[in-house]
Amino acid sequence: MKKISLLGATGSVGTQTLEVIREHADQFSVAALAFGQNIDAALPIIHEFRPRLVSVKNKQVADQLRIQIDSGIKLVYGVEGMIEVASATDSDMLVNAVLGSIGLEPTLAAIEAGKTIGLANKETLVTAGHIVMQRAKESGVSVLPIDSEHSAIFQSIQGQDRSAISKLIITASGGSFRDLKREDLEKVTVNDALKHPNWSMGAKITIDSATMMNKGLEVIEAHWLFHMPYEKIETLIHRESIVHSLVEYADHSVMAQMGLPSMLVPIQYALSYPSRMKSRLTKPLHLSEIGNLHFQKVDTCRYPSVSLAYQAGKEGGTMPTVLNAANEVAVHAFLKKKIAFLDIERYVEKALEHHQTVHNPDLRTIEAVDKETRVFVADLIN
Amino acid sequence: MKKISLLGATGSVGTQTLEVIREHADQFSVAALAFGQNIDAALPIIHEFRPRLVSVKNKQVADQLRIQIDSGIKLVYGVEGMIEVASATDSDMLVNAVLGSIGLEPTLAAIEAGKTIGLANKETLVTAGHIVMQRAKESGVSVLPIDSEHSAIFQSIQGQDRSAISKLIITASGGSFRDLKREDLEKVTVNDALKHPNWSMGAKITIDSATMMNKGLEVIEAHWLFHMPYEKIETLIHRESIVHSLVEYADHSVMAQMGLPSMLVPIQYALSYPSRMKSRLTKPLHLSEIGNLHFQKVDTCRYPSVSLAYQAGKEGGTMPTVLNAANEVAVHAFLKKKIAFLDIERYVEKALEHHQTVHNPDLRTIEAVDKETRVFVADLIN
Repeated sequence: MKKISLLGATGSVGTQTLEVIREHADQFSVAALAFGQNIDAALPIIHEFRPRLVSVKNKQVADQLRIQIDSGIKLVYGVEGMIEVASATDSDMLVNAVLGSIGLEPTLAAIEAGKTIGLANKETLVTAGHIVMQRAKESGVSVLPIDSEHSAIFQSIQGQDRSAISKLIITASGGSFRDLKREDLEKVTVNDALKHPNWSMGAKITIDSATMMNKGLEVIEAHWLFHMPYEKIETLIHRESIVHSLVEYADHSVMAQMGLPSMLVPIQYALSYPSRMKSRLTKPLHLSEIGNLHFQKVDTCRYPSVSLAYQAGKEGGTMPTVLNAANEVAVHAFLKKKIAFLDIERYVEKALEHHQTVHNPDLRTIEAVDKETRVFVADLIN
Repeated sequence: MKKISLLGATGSVGTQTLEVIREHADQFSVAALAFGQNIDAALPIIHEFRPRLVSVKNKQVADQLRIQIDSGIKLVYGVEGMIEVASATDSDMLVNAVLGSIGLEPTLAAIEAGKTIGLANKETLVTAGHIVMQRAKESGVSVLPIDSEHSAIFQSIQGQDRSAISKLIITASGGSFRDLKREDLEKVTVNDALKHPNWSMGAKITIDSATMMNKGLEVIEAHWLFHMPYEKIETLIHRESIVHSLVEYADHSVMAQMGLPSMLVPIQYALSYPSRMKSRLTKPLHLSEIGNLHFQKVDTCRYPSVSLAYQAGKEGGTMPTVLNAANEVAVHAFLKKKIAFLDIERYVEKALEHHQTVHNPDLRTIEAVDKETRVFVADLIN
């Protein structure tokens, strides 16, 4: 029985993680979980999975929840609460499925406690990849990716000669606006942007998919997860989202992982790794029914966010933190209809231009730069 | 330095094996080689690679060759000669690239001598898979596939949970006539059949590709190489021959190996396994330049050879030997313009119908059935 600590239990990846745990209840249980403030969503989860420990956003939510759950369940809150969940003594693995840079400290705590990490939180690697991967190495802890692209790469390097990897190729659907020209993007609306062709995801990540900043952040994650220089990481538009990513080797062999689009597969792989388990929740891929797989180059004039991400990644230090924080604020402003779609990348670019890189930043510096950037972009917008 | 014994040195796979050895001369050398009677092709090979031992078809060829090569090179001939080459004391690995069932005995001798086997000879597994894989297991010897499909499967199961394999999917270009309807096949000529769209191969295998008997034989090989029941082996038409084969797992993940069509990649992988080496002889795959990958079901009415092979494989025993021998004779007759293209499968079907299966046959029985079948089909044709 593998006991899981789950951060972000009521979110998209969180609830799908619980689906996998439910399907394989003989192999997995929930030792501890954290969510924000969605008590309605959390209550049935707590009743079903009976974690020993639950963390919520703040004391107010904790007080509300206290009277509705078993008194045997320990209730904590805030970042300290998330850290307690992440490093719970009776859990074997942390699944970090929270959004935003709040996921960072709990991940480091879990690493220190020797837990296997299942990582769906992009910001952890984007802003502090140098710290996370170094600590994981020192603690002998595995960091297993939970998103389809990095899971595909991870699956495509199993049992392979890693010294012979010549290229990671991250596929991208191209997002909601892939069939629009650049000039058509000026006037797209929030509702247009939220219609993703292949994947059902949260609002933030769906917008990131439309700008392809999502891919840019994934490039930075891949850099850290797989110790690959940016020159060896490429992106490739693949409309059908069937080939989830690829790895090229020195002998020109290319290994790829495929499947119908579903987050359940990478989630389950991280949980069961290195084994695989049956999945009744997902459907098999029949390539003859799909018929046709398309691939095209990423046009970085069409998708400047990708270039911005490479630029920030190569610069390193605090620059990816700026990229991520500026993007979060700008996407939020777009979702609130304060700025236009194309303004997102403009604000990100301005933030990158404005920032002076601090190299090899510690957590406090990362946090400070994150805050400064948010204020800087918010001021520009208002 | 890995020392190679090479059977079939002047053939298509043999010469490509030598290309790989030449490119990586710091890592590989040729300890011994065998060829048939093409002395013109063999002489520069012998001069360049300087094997200690050479085997040829018969005494006549040996006598002709003797006066043209260094007297320090030992010359042998016949099946005994091939066996001596395959099990040469100073070689680490046998690359078996001869055509036909003559490849069987040398393979078994190499297994007994504890050599790693690189197997490009289909007949070895098709006719005697039960013996070869059992002996390899007993001797703790690895049998590494040297053709693009099985190499792709082999690469796609490295580091994976083999107990969770749910399906092997062998891709097929569809051969020279894939765009013709069944009724159009009655009148196709030898020259038409020899124009393969993607691969440059020998005449026999190009015809087998047009009938898709090639795929049928590969299904039987895959059954033995990967210990998979026939129900878990599928074929899939993929025009571009970029995805060389795929493996589906219980979690609906599908792993695949891709690359531009080239035998050099699977040859090199077998030689360097489990490492990979650079390849200057092959070109990298750029999916965005290919643009489009197509997949379609194999229509077994269009390609009855595939059904015949499944039928023979599932029946087992001596039936695959009959399939292979009948096909060889029929393809030979087609190449000699004695029979029409569609007659090939008709003769194979007749041979299968005529034969009474002997289960778990020994080598002598396999050999006898092989000969009987050849006589039976030749008599039908003449």
